[in-house]
Amino acid sequence: MRTYFDHAATSPMPPDVLDAYTAELRRAANPSSLHAEGQAARMRIEQAREDIARAVGASTPAEVVLTSGGTEADNLAIKGLWRLRNADVGSAGDASSGEEPSGGEHSSPPRPRILISAIEHPAVSEAADWLTGLGAEVVRIPVDADGRLDLAAYEAALTADPDRTALVSVMAANNEIGTVQPIAEVAALARAHRVPVHTDAVQAFGQLPLDFAAVGVDAMTVTAHKIGGPVGIGALVLGRDLAPEPVLHGGGQERSVRSGTLDVAGAVAFAAAATSATADLPARAGHMAALRDRLIDGITAAVPEAELSGPPGAGRLPNNVHFVFPGCEGDTLIFGFDAAGFATSAGSACSAGVSRPSEVLLACGRDEPTARACQRFTLGPETSEADVDRLLAALPEIVVRARRAGMASGAPA
Amino acid sequence: MRTYFDHAATSPMPPDVLDAYTAELRRAANPSSLHAEGQAARMRIEQAREDIARAVGASTPAEVVLTSGGTEADNLAIKGLWRLRNADVGSAGDASSGEEPSGGEHSSPPRPRILISAIEHPAVSEAADWLTGLGAEVVRIPVDADGRLDLAAYEAALTADPDRTALVSVMAANNEIGTVQPIAEVAALARAHRVPVHTDAVQAFGQLPLDFAAVGVDAMTVTAHKIGGPVGIGALVLGRDLAPEPVLHGGGQERSVRSGTLDVAGAVAFAAAATSATADLPARAGHMAALRDRLIDGITAAVPEAELSGPPGAGRLPNNVHFVFPGCEGDTLIFGFDAAGFATSAGSACSAGVSRPSEVLLACGRDEPTARACQRFTLGPETSEADVDRLLAALPEIVVRARRAGMASGAPA
Repeated sequence: MRTYFDHAATSPMPPDVLDAYTAELRRAANPSSLHAEGQAARMRIEQAREDIARAVGASTPAEVVLTSGGTEADNLAIKGLWRLRNADVGSAGDASSGEEPSGGEHSSPPRPRILISAIEHPAVSEAADWLTGLGAEVVRIPVDADGRLDLAAYEAALTADPDRTALVSVMAANNEIGTVQPIAEVAALARAHRVPVHTDAVQAFGQLPLDFAAVGVDAMTVTAHKIGGPVGIGALVLGRDLAPEPVLHGGGQERSVRSGTLDVAGAVAFAAAATSATADLPARAGHMAALRDRLIDGITAAVPEAELSGPPGAGRLPNNVHFVFPGCEGDTLIFGFDAAGFATSAGSACSAGVSRPSEVLLACGRDEPTARACQRFTLGPETSEADVDRLLAALPEIVVRARRAGMASGAPA
Repeated sequence: MRTYFDHAATSPMPPDVLDAYTAELRRAANPSSLHAEGQAARMRIEQAREDIARAVGASTPAEVVLTSGGTEADNLAIKGLWRLRNADVGSAGDASSGEEPSGGEHSSPPRPRILISAIEHPAVSEAADWLTGLGAEVVRIPVDADGRLDLAAYEAALTADPDRTALVSVMAANNEIGTVQPIAEVAALARAHRVPVHTDAVQAFGQLPLDFAAVGVDAMTVTAHKIGGPVGIGALVLGRDLAPEPVLHGGGQERSVRSGTLDVAGAVAFAAAATSATADLPARAGHMAALRDRLIDGITAAVPEAELSGPPGAGRLPNNVHFVFPGCEGDTLIFGFDAAGFATSAGSACSAGVSRPSEVLLACGRDEPTARACQRFTLGPETSEADVDRLLAALPEIVVRARRAGMASGAPA
């Protein structure tokens, strides 16, 4: 018997989503085609867009720009919104000509700054860092020991130079340690300075009440496969007045912001997953939060030296449990849990399986051995009390063995 | 009864591909995860990559970089390979600082030129045009009246300044009129000048024998949904020695060239479609080519003034029939065929359904009314002689009505 505690990496597809998906896969047509099959596909994808819009609290389906997933949506938000405010940058880039920037139609002064938190997903931070090659200045706002954004530092950074700031990007909740960010405050302050705000809500969606219009951000990333939809489809929820420069150029689909053949079946499955994840959100989140706290309490009781990362209670995602087990290597713990029948993670699954200390924990002020000693358990709607109790029963021996392996390899206790 | 003649827009998923797909959708896990579920998913995606590599004639699975489809693969090839040769361009782009390019680690002189054919898909041509903002010089090589690349013009353009040329991109076959390009000659000449070559083989894959290693290109775009696989997955086949700058930054999946959670189910379905499309390619292509010629002959007999676009016989894709019907609007023809039970197209379905004269026909030297008077019929492996004959029986009246509508609206005959 295997039990899956890695929903933050990807969450299995429930039968009703799979049914909706396969029904649509049987009738595929290109929604850009004018014939009856194409127009029917167009109607189905627009219905899906409407359902997704409702699930994310967009004020209109037009605000939902479908993408291939969270990474692409983050790249589109960061690069596209920065370029919107720095359209001339690079236009003098032909190093052989040495011409001055033309100015041209974009006469507003450049806004090179991007403010991001110190614990963004690489799809945000690497995209921002790439822009430094075009002249961007990336400012990383520190977080506290629990991973919560330092609001005073954020306010200081923003107000230091709002007119040279192109955008702010702060995730809604962290993918490793589950810390929920004060995104409404972040957005309100940025809006007061007329700086657009993006939030990566990939982990928060389906876990927290998330209302695009109410939160007050200009752009919000969501993806399907973390809530039981398919891998390969996501969305950037995007205010209608914003036209970021595309990342993928081509046929001009999706408000000319994102080209590529529209994925009708993916959108329909995404809509089904989003609808069921948000329709009963309080019950669903309540169920997971209760199991989360049971697991946290059980780990603390069984392994007293284990230390919860991120805040307890309402400050963290309802499905996230993340502990440091001093003296243990994260990967050793994974293999221990795996041998005992549990799928767990050392942090993010988004870094191509390479074993490194967690950048998130380092940003929270932990040292490198600690940032290597972690284990993440992420729950799903189908996780049961029995699942949690089975993991708790197996835990002590797994930790003892991992610590022994760590001591043998010279890791500090 | 409906008959589908729009396989170039998207091709229905055969039952065996759907079965492979849904089986995989039931067992999803993130292949970057270290637990048993993740590692099993990793093995399945690597098996799929091996199957795709075999289908495209790659020398190793490592040459298959999975993307969200053809548009993304084209963007990655064009932008990524250009930036590889022009990494410094834009680094002095902070218009407020006015600094000179640093030179830095990339000391080789820039290569601003990109050579593309005049009839590339927008995913190539728009990506190239976007690079002009970073200093690129886009050279469009003309085509003849049949849409075939002017090899003399190409050679002249290439040899005029090979050391300032970053890449060449010529599609393997055109998406609208089906013209097959002399891609091996294009590649050989570029390689003689050490200029990398990309080919968009989205339409050619599954239609023509396509061997990445033998053709001699450095990068080749293919996508799943034109051969019966799902929308939302494709690949850039990419020589192992090439490391284009990413278009999507993030977790560093896919040789650090393309970030984003790996789509195991999509890859498995893509592999199933690619394997069956190429396993019996001669028989499959022969079947379609026979029906293609039956349709061409039938249209020519029934509507003598109709004019085939692109070359006949081996010079065109086996599944492509494209005619100009003088005096008719393409969209009127679509609606006529649609009402009679046939799904057809006026050209590409990739331009978001907007009615415009075909850029491809304009580049072939046709005038604007002619470039609006076309109809594309694209066949699939399941198309039958009876399907073709039914379309031919319905054709004359549809054309008569479309011509009458065209005369009423003042279109020249």
